[in-house]
Amino acid sequence: MPIDPEVLRQWPIAEVEHSYTVRDTMLYALGLGYGADPMDDKQLQFVYEGRLQALPSMAVVLGYPGFWISNPGTGADWKKVLHGEQAIEIFKPLPTAATVIGRSRVTGLFDKGKDKGAVLVSERDVIDKSSGDVICRLTSTTMLRGDGGFGGPSGPLPAPHPLPDRVPDQTVSIATLPQAALIYRLSGDYNPLHADPAVARSGGFEKPILHGLCTFGVVCRALLDAICGNDPSKLRKMQVRFSAPVFPGETIVTELWKETGGVVSFRAKVKQRDLVVINNGRAEVAA
Amino acid sequence: MPIDPEVLRQWPIAEVEHSYTVRDTMLYALGLGYGADPMDDKQLQFVYEGRLQALPSMAVVLGYPGFWISNPGTGADWKKVLHGEQAIEIFKPLPTAATVIGRSRVTGLFDKGKDKGAVLVSERDVIDKSSGDVICRLTSTTMLRGDGGFGGPSGPLPAPHPLPDRVPDQTVSIATLPQAALIYRLSGDYNPLHADPAVARSGGFEKPILHGLCTFGVVCRALLDAICGNDPSKLRKMQVRFSAPVFPGETIVTELWKETGGVVSFRAKVKQRDLVVINNGRAEVAA
Repeated sequence: MPIDPEVLRQWPIAEVEHSYTVRDTMLYALGLGYGADPMDDKQLQFVYEGRLQALPSMAVVLGYPGFWISNPGTGADWKKVLHGEQAIEIFKPLPTAATVIGRSRVTGLFDKGKDKGAVLVSERDVIDKSSGDVICRLTSTTMLRGDGGFGGPSGPLPAPHPLPDRVPDQTVSIATLPQAALIYRLSGDYNPLHADPAVARSGGFEKPILHGLCTFGVVCRALLDAICGNDPSKLRKMQVRFSAPVFPGETIVTELWKETGGVVSFRAKVKQRDLVVINNGRAEVAA
Repeated sequence: MPIDPEVLRQWPIAEVEHSYTVRDTMLYALGLGYGADPMDDKQLQFVYEGRLQALPSMAVVLGYPGFWISNPGTGADWKKVLHGEQAIEIFKPLPTAATVIGRSRVTGLFDKGKDKGAVLVSERDVIDKSSGDVICRLTSTTMLRGDGGFGGPSGPLPAPHPLPDRVPDQTVSIATLPQAALIYRLSGDYNPLHADPAVARSGGFEKPILHGLCTFGVVCRALLDAICGNDPSKLRKMQVRFSAPVFPGETIVTELWKETGGVVSFRAKVKQRDLVVINNGRAEVAA
């Protein structure tokens, strides 16, 4: 069944109520590899309730509506779906424990042609249930590789953030654990692609791959360390384009360029394969 | 306030109702370092819901009544308490998710003298709430180093299990993660001694130590691998004496001796310091 663009544009993504605890907040950070130096207070503040702060990148696991695109009514070929881009905007520091509401909607659907597929843009507001405040807003771009050619417009889509053509100002190297995907998935994305060797093989990978959003979190670690003095309240915005998967156990090297006005450009490579895995990154940092 | 032995012997340890999920069961195993080879199905079966089994050693975190000895009414000097011995007896394979009842009681209190302290023996039955079956029974020996000399009997206490005076039949080496204590504590023992460098220092340690029961679990891993073909239903009993703490990141080497009748004797050392950390171990394995 082909997609009906009007149905997809109006798809009523279910609102989600999500309660999480300090244990969940610590577990999220452990999935990014925090605590590898248990004497390092800059790491401990994210994995120990005695001085706990929530990571800005944890926004992506809050109020997650699930993999709704696989609902047969969407008409989408969900097995061909890829996560293309992710952006977060933080309005208030994430609570270390709360009940939040995830309110999601489709905001764009573009046709890149029969060969390239469709591009779906969606947004999610994460709302603190007790105060009603919007804590953060997430924007995701999803590539529906099997659903192009429906005859819709091909844009407008924002151009990728351009990276400077010079040597990076700073480089941060972070090793992931071989079991990183197994820890990270306990934060809510149980896709077996990240755990089951047989599922990974049927998806065309030699072994389970790391969640793209785990890589996103590791790069957030690099940004916090390099430009925020490990103060999570300083990171206001972060956006990335996913360009290749990471295997658990690989080392992620983030390259950063400091621009004007608190803007930081970045990309990330896997050290072992010298391959860009996150590209066209842009962050905004409070003064 | 000195202890009143009759009060302590009759102490009404609160019954605990404890619900846990497959996520908790996987997180427990991740705390023991399972999944370090994510392509190894013998490890995956403990950390992936697609084929999940619960580890026998997880018994120690089920229906945990908390650190009740620190209740002022016991009169015990709880800061001087040490975990001396731990035994588990498994009657039925542990469910991967369940609601259990932890029913604990003091079964012995002995006086080793003013200098050595008191020895408290307690038992805990873990009962499957839905069936009423007793899943497992735990026996703990606690050293109350500050509470000896109350004038009670010094025994009878069972003698430590003797180890053979010959070269071990088998040796299993398992590396722990630097963040092992930070992951393990999410299974319920949040004692800051295992996370906070300042608390560790005030307890006389240069840095946070691993939970004794995490070391117990790592040694259980070694037993399952060496003598149970990684079939958790084969391990019926396991008892140990704690002799020294492990620091997260150290490698635990378990030495095993196969005896008659399914009995296995064992001890464990830290490779980096050639120090015995678990001694007088005894396990019983089904044929």
